[in-house]
Amino acid sequence: MKVGVVGASGYTGSELLRILALHPEVDVVAASSRRYEGMEIWKQHRFLKGFYSDLKFCYPDLKYFEECDVVFTAVPHGEAMEYVPQFLDVGIKVVDLSADYRLDRVTYERVYGKKHKDYREAVYGLTELHRDEIKNANLVANPGCYPTCTVLAVAPLAKMELIESVVFDCKSGITGAGEKPTSFTHYPTLHESVNPYKVIEHRHYYEMVQELTRFQGDIKISFTPQVFPGSRGILTTAHVFLSGELSKREIEAIYNDFYSECYFIRLQDEVGLNQVRGSNFCDIAIYPTSERVVVVAAIDNLVKGASGQAVQNMNVMMGLDETLGLNVPPLYP
Amino acid sequence: MKVGVVGASGYTGSELLRILALHPEVDVVAASSRRYEGMEIWKQHRFLKGFYSDLKFCYPDLKYFEECDVVFTAVPHGEAMEYVPQFLDVGIKVVDLSADYRLDRVTYERVYGKKHKDYREAVYGLTELHRDEIKNANLVANPGCYPTCTVLAVAPLAKMELIESVVFDCKSGITGAGEKPTSFTHYPTLHESVNPYKVIEHRHYYEMVQELTRFQGDIKISFTPQVFPGSRGILTTAHVFLSGELSKREIEAIYNDFYSECYFIRLQDEVGLNQVRGSNFCDIAIYPTSERVVVVAAIDNLVKGASGQAVQNMNVMMGLDETLGLNVPPLYP
Amino acid sequence: MKVGVVGASGYTGSELLRILALHPEVDVVAASSRRYEGMEIWKQHRFLKGFYSDLKFCYPDLKYFEECDVVFTAVPHGEAMEYVPQFLDVGIKVVDLSADYRLDRVTYERVYGKKHKDYREAVYGLTELHRDEIKNANLVANPGCYPTCTVLAVAPLAKMELIESVVFDCKSGITGAGEKPTSFTHYPTLHESVNPYKVIEHRHYYEMVQELTRFQGDIKISFTPQVFPGSRGILTTAHVFLSGELSKREIEAIYNDFYSECYFIRLQDEVGLNQVRGSNFCDIAIYPTSERVVVVAAIDNLVKGASGQAVQNMNVMMGLDETLGLNVPPLYP
Amino acid sequence: MKVGVVGASGYTGSELLRILALHPEVDVVAASSRRYEGMEIWKQHRFLKGFYSDLKFCYPDLKYFEECDVVFTAVPHGEAMEYVPQFLDVGIKVVDLSADYRLDRVTYERVYGKKHKDYREAVYGLTELHRDEIKNANLVANPGCYPTCTVLAVAPLAKMELIESVVFDCKSGITGAGEKPTSFTHYPTLHESVNPYKVIEHRHYYEMVQELTRFQGDIKISFTPQVFPGSRGILTTAHVFLSGELSKREIEAIYNDFYSECYFIRLQDEVGLNQVRGSNFCDIAIYPTSERVVVVAAIDNLVKGASGQAVQNMNVMMGLDETLGLNVPPLYP
Repeated sequence: MKVGVVGASGYTGSELLRILALHPEVDVVAASSRRYEGMEIWKQHRFLKGFYSDLKFCYPDLKYFEECDVVFTAVPHGEAMEYVPQFLDVGIKVVDLSADYRLDRVTYERVYGKKHKDYREAVYGLTELHRDEIKNANLVANPGCYPTCTVLAVAPLAKMELIESVVFDCKSGITGAGEKPTSFTHYPTLHESVNPYKVIEHRHYYEMVQELTRFQGDIKISFTPQVFPGSRGILTTAHVFLSGELSKREIEAIYNDFYSECYFIRLQDEVGLNQVRGSNFCDIAIYPTSERVVVVAAIDNLVKGASGQAVQNMNVMMGLDETLGLNVPPLYP
Repeated sequence: MKVGVVGASGYTGSELLRILALHPEVDVVAASSRRYEGMEIWKQHRFLKGFYSDLKFCYPDLKYFEECDVVFTAVPHGEAMEYVPQFLDVGIKVVDLSADYRLDRVTYERVYGKKHKDYREAVYGLTELHRDEIKNANLVANPGCYPTCTVLAVAPLAKMELIESVVFDCKSGITGAGEKPTSFTHYPTLHESVNPYKVIEHRHYYEMVQELTRFQGDIKISFTPQVFPGSRGILTTAHVFLSGELSKREIEAIYNDFYSECYFIRLQDEVGLNQVRGSNFCDIAIYPTSERVVVVAAIDNLVKGASGQAVQNMNVMMGLDETLGLNVPPLYP
Repeated sequence: MKVGVVGASGYTGSELLRILALHPEVDVVAASSRRYEGMEIWKQHRFLKGFYSDLKFCYPDLKYFEECDVVFTAVPHGEAMEYVPQFLDVGIKVVDLSADYRLDRVTYERVYGKKHKDYREAVYGLTELHRDEIKNANLVANPGCYPTCTVLAVAPLAKMELIESVVFDCKSGITGAGEKPTSFTHYPTLHESVNPYKVIEHRHYYEMVQELTRFQGDIKISFTPQVFPGSRGILTTAHVFLSGELSKREIEAIYNDFYSECYFIRLQDEVGLNQVRGSNFCDIAIYPTSERVVVVAAIDNLVKGASGQAVQNMNVMMGLDETLGLNVPPLYP
Repeated sequence: MKVGVVGASGYTGSELLRILALHPEVDVVAASSRRYEGMEIWKQHRFLKGFYSDLKFCYPDLKYFEECDVVFTAVPHGEAMEYVPQFLDVGIKVVDLSADYRLDRVTYERVYGKKHKDYREAVYGLTELHRDEIKNANLVANPGCYPTCTVLAVAPLAKMELIESVVFDCKSGITGAGEKPTSFTHYPTLHESVNPYKVIEHRHYYEMVQELTRFQGDIKISFTPQVFPGSRGILTTAHVFLSGELSKREIEAIYNDFYSECYFIRLQDEVGLNQVRGSNFCDIAIYPTSERVVVVAAIDNLVKGASGQAVQNMNVMMGLDETLGLNVPPLYP
């Protein structure tokens, strides 16, 4: 299977290359970067020395990707819509890691503040929720990292229409902010700190609403993101207020049932980010009280929250085993 | 003024010594540690070399503290009640950093699972809320670190009886767990992780209830603690659901009014733990939406969350300027 | 191929399980832990949930390992010598990760301060230096983490007998100290610190001497270890004073030649620990001056410095491709 | 005493403000920043809210500094030489934190690659070595952070002309790289890594040579800097090869004698960066062998390595007690 990566110099791009290096059915034949065009991949991504030895960054031009079966677009939102139609037009399947195809047109244009130049239907690539649609999709909109972690945390309860309101308090590693240095990602800004940002207005909120209201229309969702001192990981603490009281056993039964076919969801007694690092797993622990249920979910933001899920979606689109190339234990500790 | 510290080998003990070294009116005349009895202070606390050069750890026996005006008891809960009555009986004022005198007897015995051997009235030492009582107190029960940060975050709203429910999602540095090595405090356990613990059952919850229901009886309080990779700091994200909608301006007016006499409360546009580290400040930022108000509050858990507030309380008890010895800028970055 | 792990509850043990989960030719049939005997592996190592689902910790008794082709002994020094002869006697090959078989008897007994109960010849498992002997070995003594990184850093220069003296200044992640909590591994001890330890007297020194003097008898070696705030990784800064002046080009030629058959050695322009994390690579960069050559080498202490190299040695012993199961890119960033 | 700070928006500038807030004899009357001209200090440096409430950043124009007794110039090298002569000409004493006046003209112009526009004699402000000259100086060139730590580590041995060669292997917090975000200071670049840089060619080397050869002309000095994951601190591991063998007792006597009048030098049994953080102390531990002496020295790079030493120099210049405003315990842990 021939695969291309548009935007291979950023973190989600290099993470795709890292993951695909282990994929038994994939041959990466093109990886683009305008900035590093012509340079060997490993000269920019030194950690990849020994891999992709013959591959150089190409310009993101269709001609370099023509033989691909699938292309991943790992570019900023607003840019993906420039590339995606070109690939689809020549019959190449696309997994887009940007936000460009995740929302309906009206919401997208309001939230991202720009006209959509290529609005079209795409399947929202939260694999565990949309597997059957993904099988037949030509374009999958890979979810944001926060929506992945938060929606997976409470989807089983939403499907049973049990939720009155939920507060998602999320803690993310700083790689979610990308590889461009800013004062926000400056080492001393984050060292021994926890920094809230976009406290009441993060764009990923709208993906959560879209996905959870598919199950239950009247959920009241609150979301606050924060960065913690680490590169990788999102921990979601979901404070869920239910419409009725349920025992721990009942709740666990609901989760086990909902995720019975989902290899990458692991119900655990306790979760911590270091027990999912580097893997495509989403670990979930449940703590019920008489007043609320606390659901804690953990993912690696660059794997299940981005490039790993993108590969998972590719596997499903291409009729492969969903876990192919992804069945790797976390790097602990 | 002569001061003693019972339990000077742990983190709150050494932090008291650090802070008191800068206090212009204080002379530390006794510091006890059963484990290090007879050893020079700085040989155990190497960072203090050059300070307290003539002071050795004594046994925690009353006779070594008899000339003290104030004693700080920085020992585990259950132990403080052994010492406190001895000091009070001979007219020494006490600031107790343990949990032994913070709660009413029934709650204490239930939550801490033991009979109270010395139940008596004490003033709860959240200075900003109980300043006038502290002035006349002989025994101040210094608050827990989480109650300090969470109660300060929302007290102004509670006083106006505006809160329907509040979720406190707290992130703490690991020094809150003390200086004894455990698997929880083991470096690799916390590195690049965020670890929830006592997710729905932390003892500090009862202090929050006690203090906030003084203002408003019907608040629904939820609390979940987590540790982040750092030594110092507590960041509280308070998700507050109000009974009515208020503008940012109105809320800020409420806070400014409530804290108008409180030097150590700083309303900020943004907060991060590194902007309070090493100081007695509690920084607060407010983010209102139509659905909830997010209040973010940050303290150094060892200063405003423990030893700094203890010194602040001592200042008030002794009729000194509340800020004496504490008016130190944070260590940024 | 059937494989066993004695001592599977510590960091090197769980790292073996992590790595072997990816090995296409290996079936782990026994993993022992006295402390967790009878418990499912993943209940202790939660990050492994979904792997080894049917495997429980066994008691470290020969009978559970009898069908193994190879056993890894990942127990403290002094203990390995209790197990190793039992396995060898029944024809099971052993890779021992302890120090018990790395040194000659006299040196061992002096440095480790105890009688050796099972002294015998073993091949020192620094794969790049002893590959041919390992092919025929029944017992491989897997090297210490520091010797692996330091010896690989300068072996090519030693082989050419070019070194007058070398100072190895090493910075290690804290997992090297094991999974047992101590004041040394306590989170606040290491946070934002760099802590030298055993500054002039670390036991690994003798392995460095043994290996480097095989090439050049008169090298003067100095070694100082330090821990930095991180879980994984050893960075060696080798300050090498040569007997003559060489150009960068000449030195690189020496390294390229020496390591021409070594997949896991990567000469780089720059090295950092995050470009080898989670992988079996040893990255090396060379900075020559007229006075000294600085060679910087980086490994993951748990992979190339322990369990990864152990699997590499197993591959060689069993006639497999050396890289099998280990050809995984580092986890960056 | 009236004091000004030119360049108050960077890390050394804000650190000066932090330290001077505690100085009993100092009134900061002017603090400049071209970028933030007209803004309140605390709006840029939020951690300083409550301090300098009436002070706004001014333009770096002489007229705002005319009433100053002392001015600190905390601007990049090459810029300081624009300001310093203006202040000196009107009789204002200057402590310059840039590199502009540290070296002789020839060395400066070669190392920094530019013509010096204002070459003049200045006293090198390593206080412990030049205290008497500083007393009478109008211009003090505050040392670099690495030279401060390395020279203090071995000066006593150099004075006795005991050193044959020394390797300085230094580990610095990232604040030494300044507050401007770059790929080098990007959080993910440093997280769980140790990154060597300017391995054989750092400019601070020439200050070490200048200062140590004052004592002993023929010392062979090697220097390699690295950053570790932390904001503050420099740990120097000095590997010293002596011309003769000395006992630990003899070496300690040499150090005690050399530093007998130096409050900020503390000989310790062990050092770690967290036992000097936030303070002006330089902690030193000595480990002799028959082959070399390892001297480990630790400072806070922003305090003793920059702004703290600058204040110490100001105290000496103005005839004040050297420790005034600086006699603060480190922030541990």
